Amino acid sequence: MNESPGVDSFADLKRREQITNPQSEIVHFPASEPLPLDCGGALAPLSLAYQTYGTLNPDKSNLILVCHALTGDQHAANLHPVTGKTGWWDIMVGPGKPIDTDRYFVLCPNVIGGCMGSTGPSSINPETGRPYGPDFPVITVRDMVRAQARLLDHLGIDQVLCVIGGSMGGMQVLEWAATYKDRVFSAIPIACAARHSSQNIAFHEVGRQAVMADPDWCEGRYQEEGKSPRKGLAVARMAAHITYLSDAALHDKFGRNLQDRERVTFGFDADFQVESYLRHQGMSFVDRFDANSYLYITRAMDYFDIAADHGGVLANAFAGTKTRFCLVSFTSDWLFPTEESREVVHALNAVAANVSFVEIESNKGHDAFLLLEPELFDTVRGFLSAAALKRGIVSPDAGGSSDAGGSSGAGGSSGADG
Amino acid sequence: MNESPGVDSFADLKRREQITNPQSEIVHFPASEPLPLDCGGALAPLSLAYQTYGTLNPDKSNLILVCHALTGDQHAANLHPVTGKTGWWDIMVGPGKPIDTDRYFVLCPNVIGGCMGSTGPSSINPETGRPYGPDFPVITVRDMVRAQARLLDHLGIDQVLCVIGGSMGGMQVLEWAATYKDRVFSAIPIACAARHSSQNIAFHEVGRQAVMADPDWCEGRYQEEGKSPRKGLAVARMAAHITYLSDAALHDKFGRNLQDRERVTFGFDADFQVESYLRHQGMSFVDRFDANSYLYITRAMDYFDIAADHGGVLANAFAGTKTRFCLVSFTSDWLFPTEESREVVHALNAVAANVSFVEIESNKGHDAFLLLEPELFDTVRGFLSAAALKRGIVSPDAGGSSDAGGSSGAGGSSGADG
Repeated sequence: MNESPGVDSFADLKRREQITNPQSEIVHFPASEPLPLDCGGALAPLSLAYQTYGTLNPDKSNLILVCHALTGDQHAANLHPVTGKTGWWDIMVGPGKPIDTDRYFVLCPNVIGGCMGSTGPSSINPETGRPYGPDFPVITVRDMVRAQARLLDHLGIDQVLCVIGGSMGGMQVLEWAATYKDRVFSAIPIACAARHSSQNIAFHEVGRQAVMADPDWCEGRYQEEGKSPRKGLAVARMAAHITYLSDAALHDKFGRNLQDRERVTFGFDADFQVESYLRHQGMSFVDRFDANSYLYITRAMDYFDIAADHGGVLANAFAGTKTRFCLVSFTSDWLFPTEESREVVHALNAVAANVSFVEIESNKGHDAFLLLEPELFDTVRGFLSAAALKRGIVSPDAGGSSDAGGSSGAGGSSGADG
Repeated sequence: MNESPGVDSFADLKRREQITNPQSEIVHFPASEPLPLDCGGALAPLSLAYQTYGTLNPDKSNLILVCHALTGDQHAANLHPVTGKTGWWDIMVGPGKPIDTDRYFVLCPNVIGGCMGSTGPSSINPETGRPYGPDFPVITVRDMVRAQARLLDHLGIDQVLCVIGGSMGGMQVLEWAATYKDRVFSAIPIACAARHSSQNIAFHEVGRQAVMADPDWCEGRYQEEGKSPRKGLAVARMAAHITYLSDAALHDKFGRNLQDRERVTFGFDADFQVESYLRHQGMSFVDRFDANSYLYITRAMDYFDIAADHGGVLANAFAGTKTRFCLVSFTSDWLFPTEESREVVHALNAVAANVSFVEIESNKGHDAFLLLEPELFDTVRGFLSAAALKRGIVSPDAGGSSDAGGSSGAGGSSGADG
């Protein structure tokens, strides 16, 4: 391990290997099949890396598409190849869990622009034979979703039973429902909004400026220079991480507790636990994430505004939808406050969509969607069971054609959510 | 103007001249009169730069001490010598204004640790003959207040009619009331708290890490190296600036409006007005502020915890106080939420202090205390008039010994706040 700035650490090498040779399924679309992008350009060739969990049923009707958030990836429910830690939604996805892999076939792709095998700014630019870097096109959430649709085509899936995700994952869910109405039987957008707010754009801009201020960013060509803007990316992550929590959560978890000391040191060491925690968050993030991917994906979120794409009226985006929606927000989430989910609910109501909405009481802030929140688990489990029943999917426990409700009992067996 | 990093701009030169030769009154305490510090060290020699407005009355009873916030300075109500802009509280301090310089003598000192003439990390370290830089001692809010008390001694002032300030200025107000009970006739702590919260420490730590990540910080010795960590400090300011506003204020002011363009550019330019605004905030800040001062003053705020200094019980800090308090908070201030002012009110109630508390409805966030908030102005004007009356100060408009209430009419003329 070499701590000198710009010199690759072992973790950094492991991370970079995932760009070209991910420990995931991967599909390569040839240059002859370019993916059109909202910016007017195209990606070709296109690689999409993904993980699956569970088994696709014979009529291919039990697929749940899990969309990851800004700094997530396809490793939702397996050990992460770089960090060695459990997947970011391991708590949610697995046998007997709310997204029950004994019942459903779960697909989680890495977004384009990412850094775990799908085409992104670290990928080789076919025009130059070198990494794209700053020449990678600016992508949108709709571009991410368009790539996922192509992946579903490749896998022979016409319609997903459900598309689910939190934060930027939730944005993808909404985009799926708006753009591919017939391909989405049900949708669970969690802790998200139909457009990125001014404050959220502001926080993203701070993060990007932190990365770009680092001389090791090298105007985006750090890979070719053998460098990495680790300090800038760590600062970006630290700032962002605060926004994922809540004042109350920080107070409860750390308060003004000191870190391994009896009194303050009258210096700039991490006297307080919260400082030590944040520094750790920053440093560990740079071991698993690419700086340019951070720039591009934050930009995609900034650009997200479904209403703007539909004549300025959000309801227009969902006109004629038959998708069953379940929106979830958290009371202490100040990045995507409940009010923003409510706006989506209003738009869906305006087109007489089938929609339910749950605001969950939690002090954990935005990251609540990643954490142990029993009400979230019950909601997801119940809604999925009801959707599966409606879709006519036979439960593995049930002998007949009707769903016995799954292990939570929240699903209901007789059309409770007709 | 040279835009190269590390090379002094004209603004930077103007700023640095204020460190050694400020356009302010200044008092120099010799090395033989060291200022003891909470860290155990001392500052010697000690310089304190300050501005005054209005006239001290013969019995020296009409002084209002204005304490500035983190990035403020002594130039509360005059043109700023570096930026050429009006002072940060010009709206509040002046003839006929809420802090009426026709009635009161206003004193606003630059805090120690600052960069506008009071001793700080840019000052010359007498032990080396070079700027202190990282060898400057870590100071506390109490140290700032102790230096101000020395300034009052020098000016022959036993007691101030009022000490007032917002944010870190409010912390100084509380510290004054706790440490120098007999010297504070009345106190107006605005938008502050008795201790810095975990979330606020976290944001400060992000800012410090942004500065320290800039290679032009040179481990704090940038002055000697002829450099300046402008990019890092700008990022720190950008992050902090978001916390001074509110989600609603940003939404109302900028929303998702584009900056001088019809559509997004699919790039990393400042497409959105809020990005352009933040970049401007960052860039203009570095022209008027010193990076090390930013580190030291944020640290002083982090360490602020009055209860901890008084056996863990906040009320103890104010036991026996005769000071008249008026606390002010703003509904949309998420940096110092109302609840934190309320805790101070509870502690003051516990010691039967004379305290009033106003929570002002505002969507402007923490910075509301710097902005046009009529209810704040009325509150300050009325409370000061009542305090002046109680203190037996003759109004310039009134013929006799009783205060006619000032121009706002909010003061009351007959002991309304007995």
